[in-house]
Amino acid sequence: MVSIVKAEESNGMQLFEKLIEYAEAERLVLENTSPMLKESLPLMEARGLALAEDIEARFDSPPFDNSAVDGYAVRGRDTEAGKIFEVVDEAPAGRPSAKSVGEGEAIKIFTGGVIPDGADAVVMVEDTSGWGGTFEIGKEVPVENNIRRSGEDVREGDLMLRAGTEIGPYEVALAASQGYGELPVHRRPKVVVLSTGTELVEPGERELSPGEIFDSNSFAMVAQCHDAGAEARRIHAASDDAEVLRKAVEEALETADVVVTSGGVSVGEKDLVKSTLLDLGVEQVFWGVKFKPGKPLFFGMREDVRFFGLPGNPVSAMVCFELFVRPALMKMMGRSDHRRPTVEVHFDEDISNRFGRMHAVRVSLEKTEDGLLAKSVGAQGSGLITSLTKADAIALIGPESEVKAGETVEAIVLRDF
Amino acid sequence: MVSIVKAEESNGMQLFEKLIEYAEAERLVLENTSPMLKESLPLMEARGLALAEDIEARFDSPPFDNSAVDGYAVRGRDTEAGKIFEVVDEAPAGRPSAKSVGEGEAIKIFTGGVIPDGADAVVMVEDTSGWGGTFEIGKEVPVENNIRRSGEDVREGDLMLRAGTEIGPYEVALAASQGYGELPVHRRPKVVVLSTGTELVEPGERELSPGEIFDSNSFAMVAQCHDAGAEARRIHAASDDAEVLRKAVEEALETADVVVTSGGVSVGEKDLVKSTLLDLGVEQVFWGVKFKPGKPLFFGMREDVRFFGLPGNPVSAMVCFELFVRPALMKMMGRSDHRRPTVEVHFDEDISNRFGRMHAVRVSLEKTEDGLLAKSVGAQGSGLITSLTKADAIALIGPESEVKAGETVEAIVLRDF
Repeated sequence: MVSIVKAEESNGMQLFEKLIEYAEAERLVLENTSPMLKESLPLMEARGLALAEDIEARFDSPPFDNSAVDGYAVRGRDTEAGKIFEVVDEAPAGRPSAKSVGEGEAIKIFTGGVIPDGADAVVMVEDTSGWGGTFEIGKEVPVENNIRRSGEDVREGDLMLRAGTEIGPYEVALAASQGYGELPVHRRPKVVVLSTGTELVEPGERELSPGEIFDSNSFAMVAQCHDAGAEARRIHAASDDAEVLRKAVEEALETADVVVTSGGVSVGEKDLVKSTLLDLGVEQVFWGVKFKPGKPLFFGMREDVRFFGLPGNPVSAMVCFELFVRPALMKMMGRSDHRRPTVEVHFDEDISNRFGRMHAVRVSLEKTEDGLLAKSVGAQGSGLITSLTKADAIALIGPESEVKAGETVEAIVLRDF
Repeated sequence: MVSIVKAEESNGMQLFEKLIEYAEAERLVLENTSPMLKESLPLMEARGLALAEDIEARFDSPPFDNSAVDGYAVRGRDTEAGKIFEVVDEAPAGRPSAKSVGEGEAIKIFTGGVIPDGADAVVMVEDTSGWGGTFEIGKEVPVENNIRRSGEDVREGDLMLRAGTEIGPYEVALAASQGYGELPVHRRPKVVVLSTGTELVEPGERELSPGEIFDSNSFAMVAQCHDAGAEARRIHAASDDAEVLRKAVEEALETADVVVTSGGVSVGEKDLVKSTLLDLGVEQVFWGVKFKPGKPLFFGMREDVRFFGLPGNPVSAMVCFELFVRPALMKMMGRSDHRRPTVEVHFDEDISNRFGRMHAVRVSLEKTEDGLLAKSVGAQGSGLITSLTKADAIALIGPESEVKAGETVEAIVLRDF
C-alpha cells in the first residue's frame, strides 16, 4: 500500500522521482482514509456531522390522527352550508376528548388535537360563525378535511435517514419527532495544522522585518477544517530548524488524527518536513502530483494518523486542501459526499494547458442561456490570495489539453454564486 | 411603522383581520431589522460572520520580490543551455542575502526568499545539475522567470474585502497576509427558541402518552439558527397555561435579540402567544400572511428585540424560518446576502395554485438539458417532515397562478444537489 520513493539529488537538493496523476492522488487519499469511531451525540451537537447508521422510524408518525387546524371535529356527511352544530366537548393538543361525535354534534379541536371517535372531518374556525355552545358552518366540508392521519409522515420500521447523510435542521426535526434524543455519528477528526518557515510572523503581533511575511496559511487551513466540520488547532509556525521542526511534528503526530503542514515539502534542502516525517516513521504514500498549483504535495501515514504536507505558497496550500484534504476529512466523518459539488462550465475563449499537469484554474461563474460561463479571475500565480477571494469555483483543465470556447469542463464549486 | 390589528372573534376564537402578501411580509421583516453592534474578533472567531467594514491593504503584498520556487537567482541574460554558474551565497525564506548577483554568478534561493540585487530570474532546481559550489543549467530562462513581484497580489490602500462579505478561509488568508489579527464584525444575534404546547415531550426523555408528540420544532429551529451563524438556545416547551407562557416569553424577551416561538399564533383560543406578547408590550408589525404553509405568521418588536411567532406545524415552522427568520438573522449579522441562493426551475407538468396564497412547494431538483427540473417530493402536508428531508429546494408558486409545464418559477435552494 505504501512505497518509499527514493529521491534523486542535485547539489544537495532532492528531486522528485516521479509525479502521479491528480486522479490517482485523490484515489490514494480516499483509499487510505476511513471513517472515525462511532459515538452517540445529543441532537444539537450532532448537527453538521454525518449519520453513522441508518435511522429507522420507531413508530407511526404522526402517532395518532390529528387536526391540521383550529376548528371543529364533525361528521363530514352532516355538513352543509347553514347547518347548526352543537359543541359537546373540546380537544386541545395533548388532551384528547373522551367523547365521541354524533349526528349534528361537534368537538372543538385545536391544531394537533386528537380526532375524536365518530368524527371524520374538521371544519376550520374561519369557516364558521358561532355563539355560545353552537355554531353555523359556511359550507359543506368533505370527509378527511383537515385531518392528518396517523403514519402519513413515516411508518414504524421505515428507513427515515441513511447512514452518511449530513445532519441538518430537517434531519434533526425528523429524528426528534421520533423521540431520538441522540444520534449515532462518527467522531470529528482532530486536525493539527502546522506552518513551517522562519520567515513567518504572527498576524497582529508586530511589524514585518525585511524578508518576512505574515503567516496566513495556518489560519486559512484551520478555517478550512472548521468549514468541513473537523476540529482543528494551530501549532505556531515552526522554524526551518530541524530540531524545532522535529519536536513540533512529533507533538502533532501524537495528538492528532490528521496533521497538515504547509511549506517544507518541495525539493529544496530547506524542505526538512519530508525527511523529518520519514525519520519519525511516517510512511510515504505519494510525494509529487501532476497538479498545478501543488506539485510537491506529500501524503503519508503513521498508524492511525494521516499526514498531508502541502506546498507553502498560499494558493497552492488552500487549493490542495480543498481538493485532497477536505475529501479525506469528509470520509473520516462518514459523509457520503466526499467531494464538493461540481458543475459543468464553459469558457468563452480557447484555453490551453501546456504545463503537463492538471491545472486548477480559479474562475468566477456567470449564469447564461448556454449554461455556466467561467471566467478566469485574472492572474493565477500561486501567491495571489485574491484569486481565491474572487473565485466561485475551481475549473479543472486536464494536462496537455486544449479546451475550445464553449466546450464544457468540470468545476468544483467553492461558494454560492 | 407598526400597527395593532384588532382581530374579529368567532365563538371565542380570534380571526385574522387581514392577510398581507408574502413579498410584503418579507419586506416588513427586513425593513424592521438592522445590523447588530460592531465588535472586533480574532481571525478564527470571525469565520462565518460578515465583515462590518471595508478592509484595505496596509502594504504592498507580497511585501518584496521573491522566488516562487527553490532554485537559483541569476541574471536572465546570462542563461543558456549548458552554462555553468558559480554559487556565491544563499537566500532562504526569511533571511535575505546581502550579496548581489554578477555575471555568471548565482545565489541559491528558496521559495519565498528575497530576490537578491542584480538577479532578475530564478532557475528551478529541477532544471539544473550540479556539484559543490557550481551547477549547470539545462536551458535558457527568461527574465522574470519564477519571480513574484512585490504588490502583485494587492497594493497598499486597495479595497481588499467589502463590508458584508462572509469571512471564509480565503478571506481569513488575505486578512492574515496583511497582518490583521482581528477583523471587525457584527455581533452574532442571540436567539431564544420557545416551543409551546402541552402536548410536547422532550425527545429521549420518556415514551409518549395518548395525544402527545415529541417536540421537534425547537430543536430544528436552534439548528436553523446555528446554520445561519446565530447563537441560539431553547427554552423548554412552555405549556398552554397563560401564566407559565407569560413567564417564559418575558425571560426570552429580556435575554434575546430575537425570540422565535412555534405554535400558539393561530386563531384558536388556545393560541395564547399573541395575546401574551401584546400584553408584554410587543408591538405587532403583521399577523397573517398569504403564504402556505404559514398563514398565521406573526412578526413584532419590543425595543431592540424582534419577535417571530411561527406556526406550530413542523413544516410550516421550518419553512417560515427559512423564508422570514433567516433573512432577518443574516441582515442582523451584516451579511449582504440575506436570502438563500435562488434558481430558476421548471416542472414537467402543469401546476396550479388555487389556495389564494403563495405556495412554497418542497421539490427535488434534477439537472436536465432544459435546465433544472423540479419534482414535488410528494404530499405537501404541513406535518410531513420527510418532505423537507427529501427536498433540495422550495419552489414558490404565486397565488392564483397556473404554471404550465416547462415555464420557469423561482426556487430557494436548501442544499447542494
